[in-house]
Parts: sequence; structure tokens; C-alpha cells
Amino acid sequence: MKSTMMSAPLSISTLAEHGAAYSSDRAVVTKTETGWRTAAYADVVARARRLANALEDLGVVGDARVGTFMWNNQEHLEAYFAVPSMGAVLHTANIRLTPEQIAYTVNAAGDRVMIVDDSLAATFAPVVPLLTTVETIVVSGTIDDAVFAGASQRVVSYEDVLAAASPDREWTVVDEQDAASICFTTGTTGNPKGVAYSHRSIMLQSLATSAVDALRIGNNDTILVAVPMFHATAWCYPYSGFWAGADLVLLDRFLAPPTIVEAIETFSVTFGNGVPTVWNDVLRLLDAEPDHDLGSLQRLVIGGAAASESLFDGFADHGVDVVQGWGMTESSPLVTVGRTSRGVDAETARRQRLTQGRVISGVEIRIVDQETGEPLPRDGETIGEFELRGPWIAGGYLGVESDGPADKFHDGWLRTGDVGTLDRDGFAKLTDRSKDIIKSGGEWISSVDLENTLAGHPAIRDVTVIGVPDEKWDERPCAVVVVEDGATVGAEDLRTWLVGRVAKFWIPENWVFTTALPRTSVGKIDKKLLRGQRADGALDVMRETGR
Amino acid sequence: MKSTMMSAPLSISTLAEHGAAYSSDRAVVTKTETGWRTAAYADVVARARRLANALEDLGVVGDARVGTFMWNNQEHLEAYFAVPSMGAVLHTANIRLTPEQIAYTVNAAGDRVMIVDDSLAATFAPVVPLLTTVETIVVSGTIDDAVFAGASQRVVSYEDVLAAASPDREWTVVDEQDAASICFTTGTTGNPKGVAYSHRSIMLQSLATSAVDALRIGNNDTILVAVPMFHATAWCYPYSGFWAGADLVLLDRFLAPPTIVEAIETFSVTFGNGVPTVWNDVLRLLDAEPDHDLGSLQRLVIGGAAASESLFDGFADHGVDVVQGWGMTESSPLVTVGRTSRGVDAETARRQRLTQGRVISGVEIRIVDQETGEPLPRDGETIGEFELRGPWIAGGYLGVESDGPADKFHDGWLRTGDVGTLDRDGFAKLTDRSKDIIKSGGEWISSVDLENTLAGHPAIRDVTVIGVPDEKWDERPCAVVVVEDGATVGAEDLRTWLVGRVAKFWIPENWVFTTALPRTSVGKIDKKLLRGQRADGALDVMRETGR
Repeated sequence: MKSTMMSAPLSISTLAEHGAAYSSDRAVVTKTETGWRTAAYADVVARARRLANALEDLGVVGDARVGTFMWNNQEHLEAYFAVPSMGAVLHTANIRLTPEQIAYTVNAAGDRVMIVDDSLAATFAPVVPLLTTVETIVVSGTIDDAVFAGASQRVVSYEDVLAAASPDREWTVVDEQDAASICFTTGTTGNPKGVAYSHRSIMLQSLATSAVDALRIGNNDTILVAVPMFHATAWCYPYSGFWAGADLVLLDRFLAPPTIVEAIETFSVTFGNGVPTVWNDVLRLLDAEPDHDLGSLQRLVIGGAAASESLFDGFADHGVDVVQGWGMTESSPLVTVGRTSRGVDAETARRQRLTQGRVISGVEIRIVDQETGEPLPRDGETIGEFELRGPWIAGGYLGVESDGPADKFHDGWLRTGDVGTLDRDGFAKLTDRSKDIIKSGGEWISSVDLENTLAGHPAIRDVTVIGVPDEKWDERPCAVVVVEDGATVGAEDLRTWLVGRVAKFWIPENWVFTTALPRTSVGKIDKKLLRGQRADGALDVMRETGR
Repeated sequence: MKSTMMSAPLSISTLAEHGAAYSSDRAVVTKTETGWRTAAYADVVARARRLANALEDLGVVGDARVGTFMWNNQEHLEAYFAVPSMGAVLHTANIRLTPEQIAYTVNAAGDRVMIVDDSLAATFAPVVPLLTTVETIVVSGTIDDAVFAGASQRVVSYEDVLAAASPDREWTVVDEQDAASICFTTGTTGNPKGVAYSHRSIMLQSLATSAVDALRIGNNDTILVAVPMFHATAWCYPYSGFWAGADLVLLDRFLAPPTIVEAIETFSVTFGNGVPTVWNDVLRLLDAEPDHDLGSLQRLVIGGAAASESLFDGFADHGVDVVQGWGMTESSPLVTVGRTSRGVDAETARRQRLTQGRVISGVEIRIVDQETGEPLPRDGETIGEFELRGPWIAGGYLGVESDGPADKFHDGWLRTGDVGTLDRDGFAKLTDRSKDIIKSGGEWISSVDLENTLAGHPAIRDVTVIGVPDEKWDERPCAVVVVEDGATVGAEDLRTWLVGRVAKFWIPENWVFTTALPRTSVGKIDKKLLRGQRADGALDVMRETGR
């Protein structure tokens, strides 16, 4: 029996116009070389309408793809609204990949137009000759003729095409299951794989993550969007924030602790977010410059990697609530949020907050045996691979046919590749990426737990743990450590630190001291590279430079 | 271009299982004759699975309709989960209608099974002979053989059929646009009209109303569901509350101020809701018994009629935040919520809170000229009829074909029949129901504003204003007043009270004093009945008894 309800689709244009109409004066702030520039919501959406008309003039019709190669800024936000609302598809290219990888994603998405920040023109230049589908490059800012001299594409100015475009635009009525934007995973194996988010998945993720038990995004917030807009739609913050009428602060190419702290103090930011490294560095700055006032900042959502206890405690000293979130490109991305459950005692609350969080309303989660695929108990102890199902979870990759049960997608579930425990209240605790698992003498060692325990040592600035081959135990953990400036610590000190804090057989015999950990394009530690370096003997060289 | 996201539907079964899994110990509390009974979420859903199997045994297959004739209680909640989750359709019959109207709705919906509270058996008895589609009556509680002696239907016990049913049930995978439940409007003209909510509309309404800028429903809440579960899915509170893992308190047939206050004090209720009359009566009780402690109660959502300033101020004295909400059966029901917008001064905040609220994320609102249908400016002054569009707004009535632009539904919008202003921030202020508008000498008089202003007079307990024919001005307002016990006030006193508070030409010459105002089945003042009584001269008789 059909309902009698309207079939009105969930669409990004509705959200954009809601913000423009009812929060017209709210601010979108972008960092510049010399200060900050601010635009009102109504102006951002008015410019998005012009952008859509300009793109149409440039040949963007139907579901044509429009790529962006941009920082977090107002113009990128305009593309976030204009492209999906006109029925086209936004592809946020990852500026951290190699030129070959970038070109691969742009060609695979079939981008017809690329919008490029002028500050990224030099980075983009080596990509240009590799492009097979792009007809027009739209430069936001000043066009450097030297950079684009050899380009076969038409090169135009963002502001010029906006000025020439009509201000009037009726948005396209979309099918909510149609693609709104594309993001490529940054997997360390093989080519990047594309996920095409739908209007529906983005709107539902925005609504669900705004909930009280998730991120509490509301009209009184000022959101520092510190996660990159080129990756996983910046956790949908540009959308959920705009829907609520929150002020948005975007740092362009200036994502560094002094700018972050300046943004918080200048705009009374209430809500921050990002990977642990960024905020560990902010803590370090606050230690060095204790006069800063973070009074406005209420909460900090940490994702991409586990937040250590020292990060929780460090921000608690500044009155900031650290909340972990977990997800991935394929899950829009948020699936769990580290809110404690009702009525628990302080110790349980702390334990819950140190997990990756509790599954939020609207998505299903389970753990399964990695070999048999059988669901495992939610007892907080049994370890298995997390699987996800729901309206904002990917069911496939762009242009990739499923090839059976060993695939990433099976029986309607997404295999996440993340391994850990799930408890009866829905809290997920990650112990490892499945590919990073260390199995020693038949027993699992959690690299995440080892890393978090080591991160609590005051002399450690950064640390990761990888598995290395071992004749007797098959595999043993190897800790790769960056020591705080001015501190001195040795392997025996750290082994002593671990005694009583982790199981005895977890304690590594292999220790490497280095100056910095290699990271992927989205800021995660590149364990694959480290394992390769270790196999090549390169890590032993790094040890010398580290001490 | 299709997205690569899963097509997982929004469904009530997912919500039910989410609550049962991750908030298994949370409580559903029901008032009884002698006290309170409590069931855990996991048990409620386990019983819902049994109920679904029992209903299937009784012939409920496919999209068969199952009616309820019940108070707010645990068994009603079990039906809320079981019926839509098995792919059938719940019809919450309105226990306040006449037997003929009730039978009309049950027959029109085509209910095959009716679940009836034993405490409502006598009310239901005169309906039974009029039913044409019901095959089985399931009695929750004790079966009174005398009541059902003449019934041609099979009569069985709720607990008996549950006990006999299998506990195992896989829920049906639904199309989210399919009907989940049916509610009939309680319009005072013609037969009731059916709205069939979809899984999608209910899930989206539940998510959207839970938002920070709406009702902030979360895991830490204890919700007193004081709005009837037989009407508009009780504002989806049973669903949104369950999704969040909030405790739910249901008052069965004991909705009265002493029970409400007892519930708040016993279960530390955080969130209350209902029509103004109910909560005005609670205020009166608190005045009489000042030792009560409402410390847990954070917010009170008032809908169904405008909340007066005295209701706001009265609860502010108890530390309770009164929030207005507006909507109707056709809008699931919530569309606006009286949250103030960011950064406004105290006076603006008060003005905003006295509107019906701000349009929430996910739905569109506009006002149009009632004659031409043209959209009108959002200036907070121009008066027009509200129209709505969005995924939880009805696009038609059950079994009723649209008959053109004069219809309730046109151009994809719902005509609400409510008249008022909309401002630039999205705040809607109702001045009247279109059918209750008073037009005096070509100028509109807002009965809602007149009522609210009169309600502020300390001697007035309840008041409404209707239009009455007038030779000179076409129409003039007539105030119908219920005076507080022990107070004395006359028409001249009240006319004096209005001077300077409303426009001079608004001040009524016609005054009626009575002991109680007639109300519709959902607690709204029945102005149509009053206008009829006035025309028949019956109101003049009431005047005598009122003084």
C-alpha cells in the first residue's frame, strides 16, 4: 500500500536554499594571506547560482562531472552547492596524491571541468598533460600564464565566468539516489577507488551526525572545518553546518596550529575536528603559549586515527570535550561517535570515550569472523571485522564490478577492513586495520592499543607499531617512535613503561627512533611504507638519524 | 549518474532493532490503576516480534491494515513496532470520535484486525456492529464477555495470542515509500480524511525533530509522551525516543495533572509535551501544591494551539523551557519549533518564542495569497496561508482524488488552512485557522492574538474568540470566557484590559461567560460548535450559567 506522502527528494539544493533563506546573514569565513574574508550565506548561495550558470555555459549539462582541486575555502563551498544542485556531479580531487594518481581519478571520474585554486596551480601543472577528459580549467584567483602555457584545455578565471553568468537559476529536481559527489579512497594498494555519494546519503549523514547523541550541530555553532573538503565531503560539515545555520570557518592553505588557535579565538569557534596529529600539535602550541583562550571551544571530534588518552586529558585541561568518531570514505564517513551512554559511572564513561564511539541512529554495524564471515557476539571482547549497512554506506565502487564473496561488498554489507570489538551498547573499539594486524604465535596483538599506550609516555611525540617477520613467532611488533624535542628515552625505558600496561607478549623487541612518521594523503600514518622500509633495511638507517 | 551507495530503506524495523540492541535496558513505563509497570526496550521489541507472528496467524499478511483503539501504553508501542515492521499498516483509530466516525475510519482503512484496550471496550462496543472489514478483535487486558457477546468477529486475548506465537521473526524488507501507519484528520467538516504515513516520512520526521535546533531528543532523555498515540503517531516521539534510547513514560488512561506531576517526579522526566490546556492545568496544580519538584523537566513542547505568555512565564518560574511547535496530521506533524535564532537580544528572543516557531531542516514553508495563490513576502507582517512541501508532508488523502487547484494539494504544496505571517529567519506566526478568520469592516482580526492577550488576564482560566455576524461590520469578534474559580470579572473589565494591548477595533462587544469550552477529539477548542451554538442562541443560555 502506497503512502499518501509527497515524493519530495532529499536534495542538496533544498539545503542550500534553506540556509540562504533562513540563515541569510550567517558567515562563511576564509583565511587569506593577510587576514580573513567573510561572506554571508545568502551571498554564497547567490554565487553558487551564478557558478551553476557559468558551468552550464562551459558545457556542463546533465550529470557531467566537475572536479575541484582546492583547499577549504568559500569558492570550494560554492562548488559544493552549485554542482550537485544543477544535477551535475562534484568530484573533489585529492591534492595530496601523486600527479599520476590525481590524473587517474580525474580521468576515471570523467571530469569535464576542473576548478583549481591558484595557490595549487603549480601542484596541478604536472597533472594537466595527463588529463583525457577535462575541457576547461577554471582558476580561482589569479591565472599564472606560465603554469598553464602548454595546456590544451581552455583556461578561464573563476571570478570572470561568475561575473558573466546570470544570477537567476532554478535548481534541477534530482532523483535522490543519483550521484551528488565523488570521492576516491586513498588506499595504499592499487589505484584509488571511487565512491559516488548520493543526495540522499549526504542529506541523511548530515541529519544523523547533527543529532544530540552525535555531533550536536546547531544554529549556535561556529564550525572550524579542519578536515579537508577534498576528502569524504569534509565529513559533511559544510552541509550539516549550513543546514543548521552555523558559522563556518575555512582555513584555505593555512591549516597549522597558530592559525587554528587564531581562528578559535577570533571567531569563537565552538566545534573543531580533524586527525589527532593536527590537534596534538595544537596542544603543544598551547603548552608553549599558555595565554591562549579556548573558552568558546566546546568539542573536538577526532577521526582518521585513534585519539590517545593524552589528547583527551590535554584538551580537558582547556575545558574542551574530545569526542572520537569513526568511519571511512565508503561510509560518508561517520558511523560511530564517542558519546557515553546514559547513567554510566565515570570509569565506564572514560572507557567508552576511549573507544571509537557508539553506532549512531540510522546505520547498522556488526562484527564478523574474518575467515568464515559469520557474525560474532557483541561482548566487547571477541575480535572480528566490522561490517556496515545503511543508507549512507557505499554498496560498490565506481565502475568496479563485484567479484564474489571475497569482495569488499557482500550480502548487502560493506566489509570495512577495520578489526576490533563491539559491545552490547554499540561501542566499537578498533584494534587494527585488517592489513596491519600483528599475529604473534597465533595470538593477536593490537597495534592501536600499543600505540595509544606508548603515546601516553611523556617523552613520545608520535609513535606507530608495525608487524615484522619473526622466525619463531611468525610476526612480532616493531615500534617506530618520534621523541619529543629535548627529551631522551631508550627502548629499555619504553619496554619498562609497557610492563603492566599491556600483555607481556605484546611488548616489542624491535624499536626504531626517527624524526617523523610518513603519512598518507589524508594524514594517516603510512604503515605500508614503513613495513617496506623495514624490509629494505631503510628503517635501520632512520634509527641513526633519530637518536 | 547513479550513486554507488546502498539502497537500504529507511524502515521502522531498523529503528526498533537498533533500540533493542543498543539500548536494551532502557525503560518503557506505563501507568496502571495501582502504580507503574516497566519493560526494557529489548523485551518490548521481543514482544513486538511475537505480536507480528500472532497477527500473521490471525490472517494479517502483505499490507493488511491493523487498527488500534488504545491509550498510550506499552502494548500500543508494541503495535507501533510490530505492524509496520511486518510490512502491514497500522491504523491508530481516534478514541474520541463518535461511534459512527470511528466505524467510518476503520472501514475506510479496511482494518482486518483491531487491537482494543480493555478499558476502552465499552467505548468500542457501539462501534462493533458498524464494522465491515474487521475479522478479529484482540483485547489487551481482560475480555469482558458481556461487551463482546453480540460481536460477529472473533475475539481473542492479546496476551494469549502472544504466548502462543513464535518468538522468532525476521522483519520484512519494505519499500520506504510504502505506508507504515494511517491517521485520520479530525476536521470538523465532512468525514475524517486519512493520511498514510510512510516508513520514510516517519523516520525523517523522527531524525529531523530530534535535532539540536528542534527537540534535542537524546539518550539522556526521559520522555513523557503526553500527546495521544492515536493521533499523528504521537508526534513520532515513540519512534524518535526509542531511536535515541530515551526512557518513555506512558500514562494510559490517566492523563491528568496529578499523574503528570507524579510521573515527572518519579521518573525524572526531562521532556514533556501536549496541548496548552493540559499544561495550564498542571500549572494550576503546582500553584495549589507548591512543594512539587519539577527539577528534572528541561523542556515542554506545546502544540495543537498557541501557548499563551502566561504558560511560558508560569513554567519559567519552575525552570522549565516552554517551546512551541506547529504542524498538523498532514505534516507528520512537526514543521516549526520555537527555538530562538542565534545571537538575538532578549526582546527578539521572547518575540520569536511566542511565534509557532522556526521552520526545521528538511521541510519547506511559504505563505501565499489565499485568493490568488501567489507567494507573499517573508516580512513578518504580510498575512497569508501557510503552504508546506517536503518528504514528511502529505501529498493527498487516502482514496481521495485531487480535484484541481482549489484542492488541499496543489503544485506539489500542501495548503495548511492556517493563516499568519512568516519572517526572514523562518519564524511562522499563526493568526488564525482560515476557517476561523474574523474579517471586520474589511480588516482582519486575529482571534489567536486576542485569545492570547485575554489569557494573560489573571481572572481568566480559558478563553476563545469566534466571529459573529454583524450588520454594520459584516463580522465582529465574540469572546467566550471561562473565569477562574473564585474570581469575578465582567466584560467591561476585560475590555479595559485589552485597551492598549490590541488595536481598538479588535476589542469585542460580544462577551459570553461559561464553565467550560467544548473541545474536539484531539483537545482543540471546537469553534465551529460555538459558532453554531451562538447562531442557535445557545451561548446566551450558557452565559447565565457562567456567571
